[in-house]
Amino acid sequence: MQRCDALGLISEEPDRLTRPFASDAMRRAQDQVTAWMREAGMAVTRDNIGNLRGRYEGAKGAGGTLLIGSHLDSVRDAGKYDGPLGVLVGIAAVQGLHDRGVRLPFAIEVVAFADEEGLRYGTTYLGSRALAGTFDAADLDRTDSAGATMAEAIRLFGGDPGRIADDRWSGGDVLGYIEVHIEQGPVLEATGLPVGVVSAIAGQSRHQITFTGEAAHAGTTPMDHRKDALVAGSMFVQGVEAHAVSQAGLVATVGQLTVQPGAANVVPGEVTLSLDVRHADDTERLVAAERLIDLASDIAKHRSLAFATRRISENATVPGSPRLTSILTQAAEGLGHPVVQLASGAGHDAVVMAGLTEIAMLFVRCKGGVSHNPAELVTEGDVAVAIDVVGKFLELLAAGR
Amino acid sequence: MQRCDALGLISEEPDRLTRPFASDAMRRAQDQVTAWMREAGMAVTRDNIGNLRGRYEGAKGAGGTLLIGSHLDSVRDAGKYDGPLGVLVGIAAVQGLHDRGVRLPFAIEVVAFADEEGLRYGTTYLGSRALAGTFDAADLDRTDSAGATMAEAIRLFGGDPGRIADDRWSGGDVLGYIEVHIEQGPVLEATGLPVGVVSAIAGQSRHQITFTGEAAHAGTTPMDHRKDALVAGSMFVQGVEAHAVSQAGLVATVGQLTVQPGAANVVPGEVTLSLDVRHADDTERLVAAERLIDLASDIAKHRSLAFATRRISENATVPGSPRLTSILTQAAEGLGHPVVQLASGAGHDAVVMAGLTEIAMLFVRCKGGVSHNPAELVTEGDVAVAIDVVGKFLELLAAGR
Repeated sequence: MQRCDALGLISEEPDRLTRPFASDAMRRAQDQVTAWMREAGMAVTRDNIGNLRGRYEGAKGAGGTLLIGSHLDSVRDAGKYDGPLGVLVGIAAVQGLHDRGVRLPFAIEVVAFADEEGLRYGTTYLGSRALAGTFDAADLDRTDSAGATMAEAIRLFGGDPGRIADDRWSGGDVLGYIEVHIEQGPVLEATGLPVGVVSAIAGQSRHQITFTGEAAHAGTTPMDHRKDALVAGSMFVQGVEAHAVSQAGLVATVGQLTVQPGAANVVPGEVTLSLDVRHADDTERLVAAERLIDLASDIAKHRSLAFATRRISENATVPGSPRLTSILTQAAEGLGHPVVQLASGAGHDAVVMAGLTEIAMLFVRCKGGVSHNPAELVTEGDVAVAIDVVGKFLELLAAGR
Repeated sequence: MQRCDALGLISEEPDRLTRPFASDAMRRAQDQVTAWMREAGMAVTRDNIGNLRGRYEGAKGAGGTLLIGSHLDSVRDAGKYDGPLGVLVGIAAVQGLHDRGVRLPFAIEVVAFADEEGLRYGTTYLGSRALAGTFDAADLDRTDSAGATMAEAIRLFGGDPGRIADDRWSGGDVLGYIEVHIEQGPVLEATGLPVGVVSAIAGQSRHQITFTGEAAHAGTTPMDHRKDALVAGSMFVQGVEAHAVSQAGLVATVGQLTVQPGAANVVPGEVTLSLDVRHADDTERLVAAERLIDLASDIAKHRSLAFATRRISENATVPGSPRLTSILTQAAEGLGHPVVQLASGAGHDAVVMAGLTEIAMLFVRCKGGVSHNPAELVTEGDVAVAIDVVGKFLELLAAGR
């Protein structure tokens, strides 16, 4: 808990937690995490994209590696558990082995991913994509709000943007990937349980939509002569909410919206906004996203505006591995914690890691389901349970080999 | 026209015209305008707020000063005539006297105001307020988007922020203030006339409104658990349009809207937006502004969000001086141009100068009524008419003394 607090203070902004990809704050956070990994007996390396990897070797003659991970980057004005908790629980579990001098019949790598939230470059999963070998080199040309390309940011952070393909896992057999994360939802709190096992991670569609009207003088342009891009954008925002409310299990969000030129006395000429659509059923999600883009197109046509859309990302629903999920469940039950299986509405690095190996996730109860918010909160007791469950999981996995 | 083109290239941004208060671009524009004022026989000074003043002395024994002005700052991505045209027509009219060696029974001061649009500090009329003696020293503490206070900006530009009260007109009798400006509306084009005389400048209310909800995870927060500030802001934007459309002569605009935290995967926690309301009738304007703020409050209440509002500025409708407006009309008619009187939907420096002296305005036809947009356009022929009308106005004013 103290480690979560300490990392929560390492930010790019003075009064709130904002830790983007390849930032100075990320460097300081990694320095701290490196020290903790070493203390737990791990050898630490950093790859080109900027993932920190701590390796705890197995017993003599051991075969394969179990990956445990989560991310160290954050959204703007973030809470301190989304991401770091999973990294720190992984380190704590390894510390437990190290303290007792135990080596397992497999190695463990704890991976602290460099970017999951995508705050700086509007992408997602840069870190796990590099490790899973699905990084898209075209992303290197993206620029942040200050105009710095991703390639420049990686170079400044110490990586070689031309060698990200080398970050792909090359350490032999992988036994699986497990990730501990706060639930970010209300289910565990409602059922009164400290942890839960993830049945599946809901798919996610992300699009960017632009309405282009005509900037005009706010005092002299009569209402019926305007092509106001913000009014169109506003109709869309409401339409997104109305549609999501009408469909069970669907969530849809406009989280970003920028107005050009953005002056009080100028009718908005252009609005760019983000659309995020999620559903545990892939077909439902794709149908909803398509319908909302049609809605945007209809609004633009109706108001004689130009309209453009760009697909940012598309991730299918990822089910948890039956084998690993069952061992996680046994581990929790063996420690006396009844287990509830629940779907994750949030995307996680596990989504991308599923392209490399089997995945399973353990959720930790969080207060009010609040996340992406400084009010994010977990209890020390629940975190202790999570560490114990991961320790027990390692024991069961070792016994089965 | 060439001078308008030349000033139009002096910008803080590479590919578009953006010339804020006290910027480097403003300094370069003033250097250019200073040279043109001197060429027209004027003595040039700059006051503390940063207004450039060119003085053309009257004949021996002359009494009083006529002020002619407009502004050199711009909105973001501006056209090149809004502001500079009035300054340059004033200089051209004085050049006409200077070339013929004519001195009038009064002095003329051409004033190029330092700030009318308020782009940098979210205020309006900083330049004319200083000259009219209504500058509010509290504004000096305002900060721009980079965190620089107005006081610092003024100091860097060469003024003394502690002595802005000294900028107040102290040159004896003022005969009036006239301002030439593009119409920024469709009336002159529709009537086929090059210039028109302004009957009144519509009043304007500006407010800032903030909706505060709760930032939350876009994937895990069910639709019915959200307090989405952007959905509330969007309802308001639409309500503003709907109300303005329903009231004859009313225009209302949300030109700025910012979302916090502003990430694609976070439900918006806070939205801040601008409200600009204008009507030629003061009561109608005030009633409409009050009604729209009530609407914002109702939306916030209905959706359980917090709500705050701040009055940015309030300007009453300003009628043109009957005496000066009549001389302007005679001048135009004397040159063979039928005169239409029209109300100005836009605010102008004349609004503030009305606190110091009588005012009158001459509008120049502009293509499609487009303004605050790079497509802003006037013809050389219409500008020549405006210069002639101002020249004739000076002649008639001199004859009447």
